[in-house]
Amino acid sequence: MRNDFSNVGFLGFDVFGTVVDWRSGVARASEAFLGKYAIDLDPLAFADQWRALYQPSLQKVRSGQRPWVKLEVLNRENLETVLARHGADFGAIADTELAELNKAWERLDPWPDAVEGLSRLKRRFALGPLSNGSISGMLHLGRFGGLPWDVITGAELAKSYKPMPQTYLRSAESVGLRPDQVGMVAAHNDDLKAARAAGLRTVFIRRPHEHGPGQTTDLQAEQEWDVTADSLTEAADALGCS
Amino acid sequence: MRNDFSNVGFLGFDVFGTVVDWRSGVARASEAFLGKYAIDLDPLAFADQWRALYQPSLQKVRSGQRPWVKLEVLNRENLETVLARHGADFGAIADTELAELNKAWERLDPWPDAVEGLSRLKRRFALGPLSNGSISGMLHLGRFGGLPWDVITGAELAKSYKPMPQTYLRSAESVGLRPDQVGMVAAHNDDLKAARAAGLRTVFIRRPHEHGPGQTTDLQAEQEWDVTADSLTEAADALGCS
Repeated sequence: MRNDFSNVGFLGFDVFGTVVDWRSGVARASEAFLGKYAIDLDPLAFADQWRALYQPSLQKVRSGQRPWVKLEVLNRENLETVLARHGADFGAIADTELAELNKAWERLDPWPDAVEGLSRLKRRFALGPLSNGSISGMLHLGRFGGLPWDVITGAELAKSYKPMPQTYLRSAESVGLRPDQVGMVAAHNDDLKAARAAGLRTVFIRRPHEHGPGQTTDLQAEQEWDVTADSLTEAADALGCS
Repeated sequence: MRNDFSNVGFLGFDVFGTVVDWRSGVARASEAFLGKYAIDLDPLAFADQWRALYQPSLQKVRSGQRPWVKLEVLNRENLETVLARHGADFGAIADTELAELNKAWERLDPWPDAVEGLSRLKRRFALGPLSNGSISGMLHLGRFGGLPWDVITGAELAKSYKPMPQTYLRSAESVGLRPDQVGMVAAHNDDLKAARAAGLRTVFIRRPHEHGPGQTTDLQAEQEWDVTADSLTEAADALGCS
């Protein structure tokens, strides 16, 4: 049975989009800043533009074009890129304000089902982020949202960004398990394709509004994932965690 | 004020001896095994002899005499050394039995004050092991004892065993803080001396029975640590965590 997870001891979670709602959280954190500096941009559009630079910036690290840096370094650079596009006056903006705005990524609300779903899954599985976020970023997000992680795995531990296989493999190794004893939980088909290729089990969570009402990507499972669910509570049901 | 921790964001914990009672837990897990193989040794003495090989085995890694390995590898070697000394017949003992016995280090009871103390400290500080235990070992111990960690830092993350400075420094860096923004909590003066030398704040927890009724080491603070307490709940009191 695909959803027989009796062999699985650890579930690793994608976090941005799968567990927390980055778009509304970043928009909320940006609104006052955009107003103060008269940057004429809807906060949700600002969040989208900032996030659009995420994958290209990771790609420079994955490709070896630049050495490993933590995600907050990339987020900060991308923030300045977006602001520059909209004519921000960097002479007027304090560095501490940019640093504070960059922390928006550490203060994102969990999706409404996330805390209950994780709490139920935790009764059976060890849980941790298997994210491209840094250890400190995941630590702050976890405390902000009350996410009941047991450990933080992912990119910083592996010095490798998903979907590079090493990110999944080192995370599994760190929790003392073979890849097939680890389940990857994500709202993104590409993440699950790479996890499956590395030998992990796969849980797809549909998050059709991660990118807002007009989302066109990841609306459906693109492979037969081991579990497909509409929320983390539904995933807990599917995995027998009542 | 020494106990003004207003600047501190993270408390890193020594675990074996400070948070959990390894001696009675290892003895409990060993009793049936020792009986089955007619090894004439009190389980508490067995625990002491096994633990006595811990620091010398770490020293081989710290000195560079052997490359980094996780603590469970060292524990397993040390287990076989102790058993060999007592004439164990390795031809009769299944490998799975040794592997199972080695997991004694993942199933240790917290000291009676530990869960309450950590839960109170967690309201103000992020918490994590800053131990020589591996990530998976700390993960299992945390789930076994219900320890409310936010993250797991320490030796495996740094690929360096305490009291090497890198263990403390990389742990601080992983949680996004300067060394002086991290407090080291330990029942061992040597751990705190090294943490202080690396720039961390220090919290000494007296555990006068870690090594049983005849303990002669670490009965008292050997320096003026920032906080000295008789339990984790008393440390929570001293740090204003009600």
